[in-house]
Amino acid sequence: MPLKLSSRKWMINAKRTWKLMLTNRKSIRVEWGDCDPAGIVYYPRYFAYFDNCTAALFEAAGLPKQEMLKAHGIVGIPIVDTRARFLTPSRFGDDVIIESTIAEWRNSSFDVRHKLFKGDVLAVECFETRVWAVRSETDARKIEGRAVPQEVIARFTHTGKD
Amino acid sequence: MPLKLSSRKWMINAKRTWKLMLTNRKSIRVEWGDCDPAGIVYYPRYFAYFDNCTAALFEAAGLPKQEMLKAHGIVGIPIVDTRARFLTPSRFGDDVIIESTIAEWRNSSFDVRHKLFKGDVLAVECFETRVWAVRSETDARKIEGRAVPQEVIARFTHTGKD
Amino acid sequence: MPLKLSSRKWMINAKRTWKLMLTNRKSIRVEWGDCDPAGIVYYPRYFAYFDNCTAALFEAAGLPKQEMLKAHGIVGIPIVDTRARFLTPSRFGDDVIIESTIAEWRNSSFDVRHKLFKGDVLAVECFETRVWAVRSETDARKIEGRAVPQEVIARFTHTGKD
Amino acid sequence: MPLKLSSRKWMINAKRTWKLMLTNRKSIRVEWGDCDPAGIVYYPRYFAYFDNCTAALFEAAGLPKQEMLKAHGIVGIPIVDTRARFLTPSRFGDDVIIESTIAEWRNSSFDVRHKLFKGDVLAVECFETRVWAVRSETDARKIEGRAVPQEVIARFTHTGKD
Repeated sequence: MPLKLSSRKWMINAKRTWKLMLTNRKSIRVEWGDCDPAGIVYYPRYFAYFDNCTAALFEAAGLPKQEMLKAHGIVGIPIVDTRARFLTPSRFGDDVIIESTIAEWRNSSFDVRHKLFKGDVLAVECFETRVWAVRSETDARKIEGRAVPQEVIARFTHTGKD
Repeated sequence: MPLKLSSRKWMINAKRTWKLMLTNRKSIRVEWGDCDPAGIVYYPRYFAYFDNCTAALFEAAGLPKQEMLKAHGIVGIPIVDTRARFLTPSRFGDDVIIESTIAEWRNSSFDVRHKLFKGDVLAVECFETRVWAVRSETDARKIEGRAVPQEVIARFTHTGKD
Repeated sequence: MPLKLSSRKWMINAKRTWKLMLTNRKSIRVEWGDCDPAGIVYYPRYFAYFDNCTAALFEAAGLPKQEMLKAHGIVGIPIVDTRARFLTPSRFGDDVIIESTIAEWRNSSFDVRHKLFKGDVLAVECFETRVWAVRSETDARKIEGRAVPQEVIARFTHTGKD
Repeated sequence: MPLKLSSRKWMINAKRTWKLMLTNRKSIRVEWGDCDPAGIVYYPRYFAYFDNCTAALFEAAGLPKQEMLKAHGIVGIPIVDTRARFLTPSRFGDDVIIESTIAEWRNSSFDVRHKLFKGDVLAVECFETRVWAVRSETDARKIEGRAVPQEVIARFTHTGKD
């Protein structure tokens, strides 16, 4: 059973029907070590899945994380808020599909939405707010938001003509 | 610098001032391996901290997880919903304090609230909904909610006299 | 850049040139959360990679873990000894290839050897001894070794004719 | 049951009986999320325990990791070789004790030995070789060994008078 690790497609954004938003699909094998004594995924592991999927979404947009950090002088895109609803458990050996898309861009932050499917069933939904972050020039231990470059945002959006 | 691993105290519940709700405080050392290349805690690790703190809260109430599962025939108290806000990052070597309490009991589910402090600063807030869960009798791979026993709830609440 | 998740091939076993031993190759993307503040893979994560690769090797032999446990009534194939040498570090964004093979079968235990490559460079070598393990009939908390079934061993070996 | 997180003591080194080697003892609670579907510790987690214990050993010697990195300009003390033997499994809720000591100092590398006890029973033994590592001046992505400062070594050894 060959698995495609990742695939990209353009989805119609519900709010602004004349824009196409990049959505990435990533297949993840649930591993033995991802599961707890109840035999189901230990939920902090889902957040690692989602973090990997956000990285994969940026890579699908032509921004692999290691190059993006260097090119834009950022320290990362840290999370400031996340929420997940766990609808049905998964077990080791399951191959789940996660669909990820940017739900909204703001000045220095943005929202990512993940939907994890077991077959056709929506098993976990996750919503994250992340910041385009640089090291503070006045205190290297501090991290500050910066405006997300328009060229970055443009990579996730395809504006069609009517 | 001696560290107390865990301590319990009774806090006045804001909504119902005549009830005292058990709150547990747990100190956690942020380890090197909890941190990412930005040098700050990799956020899925916070959820592992919080899961450990929920276990510690139940233990403070006299219900260590391994005994609780056996005594009540449950498979665990899996998460169905969680949200966390990350206000300020932590780094390896930091000792953080997490205060955990049950925010609400419902029939077969309950809410836990965690506040993670770096010194006096609230650094992360987390809210979880969990289920008192048993294996389904008709399908061992399924997990179902059951009413939380009153004797369990009673361990977290102390009703005072006016 | 399409990635093949896993591929199988038959390699000539050095010691017994008339036997072909199944070797599985698995590609793993090093993720941001696999790395520590030095920016390199946090080494306990390598052991999770190797554990996943042992599972993938068994699956390549027609024994996906979840089915294997059920079919053979085992609780798992726990590690009793492992050694790893880390020759060169890897970083997030690297795609590494891990080659895994059974180095030796004994009565109730067996050795697995993993070689992790970054491009053509051998970056990590790992050696594990695992046990074919069942729950003890006299004490459910104990785990005991059992003879590995010949039909299992046969799936990893292809004896050629001279 | 109050737990002391960490304690230090001086042990007589077997090879050179006139030297006392610093040994650190650390108590670790095995958490639910450290365990796998077999209900026992997922073995990569033991390596995270041991990594934390090496950090605790250095801290007991007066070298907390974050300060040590800064004071000595090192990027870390990465592992180049490790071996562990798993003699008896542990489960969530267990409190294990890990004794850690430096087994040998060489020029730019050193060996750490860990013994993990469940009560009086030796449950896991681990041996690590680590390097006193700096970023290469010619290639920031490379990591190189440097001679361990004598003042660092001195903190772990107490030479007695006959």
